[in-house]
Amino acid sequence: MTGHVALVSAGPGDPDLLTVKALRLIRAADAILYDDLSARAILDHARADARLIDVGKRAGRPSCKQGVICAMLVDLALGGARVVRLKSGDAAIFGRLEEELLALRAAGIAHEVVPGVSSASAAAAAARIPLTRRLTARRVQFITGHDVNGKLPESLNLGALADPEATTALFMGKRTFPELARRLIAAGLPPETPALLAESISQPGQRLTRSTVAALAAMLADGPGEAPGLILYGPLAEMQP
Amino acid sequence: MTGHVALVSAGPGDPDLLTVKALRLIRAADAILYDDLSARAILDHARADARLIDVGKRAGRPSCKQGVICAMLVDLALGGARVVRLKSGDAAIFGRLEEELLALRAAGIAHEVVPGVSSASAAAAAARIPLTRRLTARRVQFITGHDVNGKLPESLNLGALADPEATTALFMGKRTFPELARRLIAAGLPPETPALLAESISQPGQRLTRSTVAALAAMLADGPGEAPGLILYGPLAEMQP
Repeated sequence: MTGHVALVSAGPGDPDLLTVKALRLIRAADAILYDDLSARAILDHARADARLIDVGKRAGRPSCKQGVICAMLVDLALGGARVVRLKSGDAAIFGRLEEELLALRAAGIAHEVVPGVSSASAAAAAARIPLTRRLTARRVQFITGHDVNGKLPESLNLGALADPEATTALFMGKRTFPELARRLIAAGLPPETPALLAESISQPGQRLTRSTVAALAAMLADGPGEAPGLILYGPLAEMQP
Repeated sequence: MTGHVALVSAGPGDPDLLTVKALRLIRAADAILYDDLSARAILDHARADARLIDVGKRAGRPSCKQGVICAMLVDLALGGARVVRLKSGDAAIFGRLEEELLALRAAGIAHEVVPGVSSASAAAAAARIPLTRRLTARRVQFITGHDVNGKLPESLNLGALADPEATTALFMGKRTFPELARRLIAAGLPPETPALLAESISQPGQRLTRSTVAALAAMLADGPGEAPGLILYGPLAEMQP
């Protein structure tokens, strides 16, 4: 009998921010594939006999290639397992979901996607700010700070990103934010646009830094640090908690 | 003793897509303020003696004014209640969160924001498509289809919205999509750009319609229907489940 793969959004890291459905699937899974150590508290909910497979990056060794992960999902399901593929934040957003969906579809494996709390929503909630505002911040956009090669994408829609009436969430962009800020300011975004850096969101070491686009860029150019971080900029980032 | 207000994201409607934290707060609440009937299954988790207060729109009567809702939250908390203010989807996105945050802050009421699954993430998961793709869909943006007056906002960043390399989620935009599509196509978006209409997301009557920007606009101009809906358009909307 063929198994089943659930592509499950793990949310920002706090097990309390899992959905009820994600928690149920994690508890029932025969095998769980996960990307990083921040999932540790979430994995505490797995069955004692579940196979926990770390496919992510780790100090000293590279992460599994995407093709290897896809093959593992298919093989485990063909072996009859109920498989959970955990993805941080919301799986549909910068989660490389497509490759795994296509592999499962090609192999005829039953699968589903479980949506979750994106890191941008979690950062905003932690800072107690909204991402939208009537009239003055009616658009919210998410972008990633590094491309396939780890650099800022060459082609950026600067008209979209330097729009003072949008809230922008930059995922995985601590290292490239100085370069992005330079280009945004050159494209007309005021340097004093409010910016918020949210590090280790919903984790024990969570830290929020309220700043401006120019000042945050200067701070990160000085040294981005190791903690994972998300940057929000736009009119609402200055709201005080 | 002063109470506490939790501004809780309810997700798209399915109680299974509540976060663990949201469910716990709902179960413990003395009073719950909610906006619409789609929350009914979620309210089944409330205590039998909890006050359930409908502040939303309903056939035959208008919704409470925002100021009235803010005053209720403050008054209930001053009376010592543990209050949950339920907001559909993610509270930070088109949820009019700011007014309530400011009122609670001004009154000195302890409060927190609980992030949740946005309707855009839930729609993508239901359709089993990602919202982002490396190289060709690196930006995802959320906009609302109606402004304070119920119409499409006058000033739109068409360079952002007609970008063929972004995924756009249009919230509450079934009625205004024909007008938006006309402006997007005039701004250069190909009429055959894939579009997906997700109605009653995660609810019993859920319906997904895969189409194109031009064809969906024509369909909705013919009659948008009453079911709440979210529209996704962009390169990924055509992926088949």
